[in-house]
Amino acid sequence: MSSHAFDSALKLQPLAPGRYAGQTSAAYWNMVGPFGGTTAATVLKAILSHPQRLGDPLSITVNYAGALAQGPFEVQLQPARTNRSTQHWTAAIVQTDAGGQPVIASTATAITAARRETWSLSDLPMPAVPRPAEVQSMRYGQAMAWLDHYELRPVSGLIPQTWDGRQHDHSLSQLWMRDQPPRPLDFCSLLALSDIFFPRVWLKRATRVPAGTVSITTYFHAGDKELRATGSGYLLGQARGQEFRNGFFDQSAQLWNEAGTLLCTSHQIVYYKE
Amino acid sequence: MSSHAFDSALKLQPLAPGRYAGQTSAAYWNMVGPFGGTTAATVLKAILSHPQRLGDPLSITVNYAGALAQGPFEVQLQPARTNRSTQHWTAAIVQTDAGGQPVIASTATAITAARRETWSLSDLPMPAVPRPAEVQSMRYGQAMAWLDHYELRPVSGLIPQTWDGRQHDHSLSQLWMRDQPPRPLDFCSLLALSDIFFPRVWLKRATRVPAGTVSITTYFHAGDKELRATGSGYLLGQARGQEFRNGFFDQSAQLWNEAGTLLCTSHQIVYYKE
Repeated sequence: MSSHAFDSALKLQPLAPGRYAGQTSAAYWNMVGPFGGTTAATVLKAILSHPQRLGDPLSITVNYAGALAQGPFEVQLQPARTNRSTQHWTAAIVQTDAGGQPVIASTATAITAARRETWSLSDLPMPAVPRPAEVQSMRYGQAMAWLDHYELRPVSGLIPQTWDGRQHDHSLSQLWMRDQPPRPLDFCSLLALSDIFFPRVWLKRATRVPAGTVSITTYFHAGDKELRATGSGYLLGQARGQEFRNGFFDQSAQLWNEAGTLLCTSHQIVYYKE
Repeated sequence: MSSHAFDSALKLQPLAPGRYAGQTSAAYWNMVGPFGGTTAATVLKAILSHPQRLGDPLSITVNYAGALAQGPFEVQLQPARTNRSTQHWTAAIVQTDAGGQPVIASTATAITAARRETWSLSDLPMPAVPRPAEVQSMRYGQAMAWLDHYELRPVSGLIPQTWDGRQHDHSLSQLWMRDQPPRPLDFCSLLALSDIFFPRVWLKRATRVPAGTVSITTYFHAGDKELRATGSGYLLGQARGQEFRNGFFDQSAQLWNEAGTLLCTSHQIVYYKE
């Protein structure tokens, strides 16, 4: 039995076919709700727990319709269609409001797939960066709770140390990262890690405007073999913004393991104020 | 009234709140189903037709669970949650099989948003390429029907002229494109154009293996103003693969108008055989 905070945060109790009860985790609390990475991972955990599930995660999209309130929630999901080697899922996270009415906090779709070995090739080699031991671990002091559960070693594009509003020439960040304490990588923790980057708009503008992910999509290139080869080692994460326009920017991210295998690629659209 | 084939392909008849009847279009037929771009655009068209819709498209994810059969289909959708300035949609395209049973062909989620002007900036300038008039329009001969409805002027990364299995050094394609005949750009046609690229695996391997999009996510950076400024001009589309592994590769794409404004960014995960 693992006693890692990440596993505790993702604990689900089956209620009925396709219905799972969960509880928000204080350990992964962000500013006005849980860290979005754990929310996405919770949906994936429910899918992986479903008795009819076929194959491993290929793709997941989680839309953050509203912040999860502290307390209980329910993950509702169903296989929308099962093919020979792929399965399409629809899901939602639902809470009950003060008036007893259901409130949808997140919607999601996902695809799982029984993959076979084929011709394979990367078209995006891991960038040449210093090794994890050569860069310092970030210390956050009294920051958000969820940051305590990750070891982050920024390589470039660090969170601005002075919020002087000086426009940065790019929005690229690179960092080594892993669970804290180290935990063998699985699909859920990989998904959570794909959402770990601070808002690109903070880097670009050196201004701490309110910002939050509205929708994230992660594509899994790793299978069990690549997860096992990664173990509890570091991942190199890289993220950059492409367009900041009228209240929203998009981010594209890639995560490699230390051996340089691209484990997942991830994209999100993020709200920002002003 | 427009008589453009694209508008005919997207024609929907309201049946009940959140239920729209459509018909597959011979004009946009691909190999074993309609061009995925029109399928995605049909979902978006239904959302834009919904009387409760708030704002303009921000994000859409369409999952292709199975090929649409030629004939009638129904788009089913609902606003899962409406906030002050964003609205979250869930949708599906459903057909009826020979036994009278409903079959889900596609699932989708989308977000619409009432956007306001804010600080804005692009972090991805349009690449320097020859102008549309300086590159030749592609002729396909007897190819798939949907290609007749697009004018494509490839700049680089053309579809291999010889399928000699020689590994290409990258999977990047750039091309100018627009509807054929020209049609003023709207959110639906922009979405369809974001799915226009031939499979990256064909370029990388110079081998024509079976391949098809499993899931696409497009983020809209354009609002009405940028659409009007684009009119029926050309878009520069750019797409590349990041990882080809065990039957699936991902593609990241960007679409600019002739003035160099980034209109949308798009990502997809694509099945390939062998």
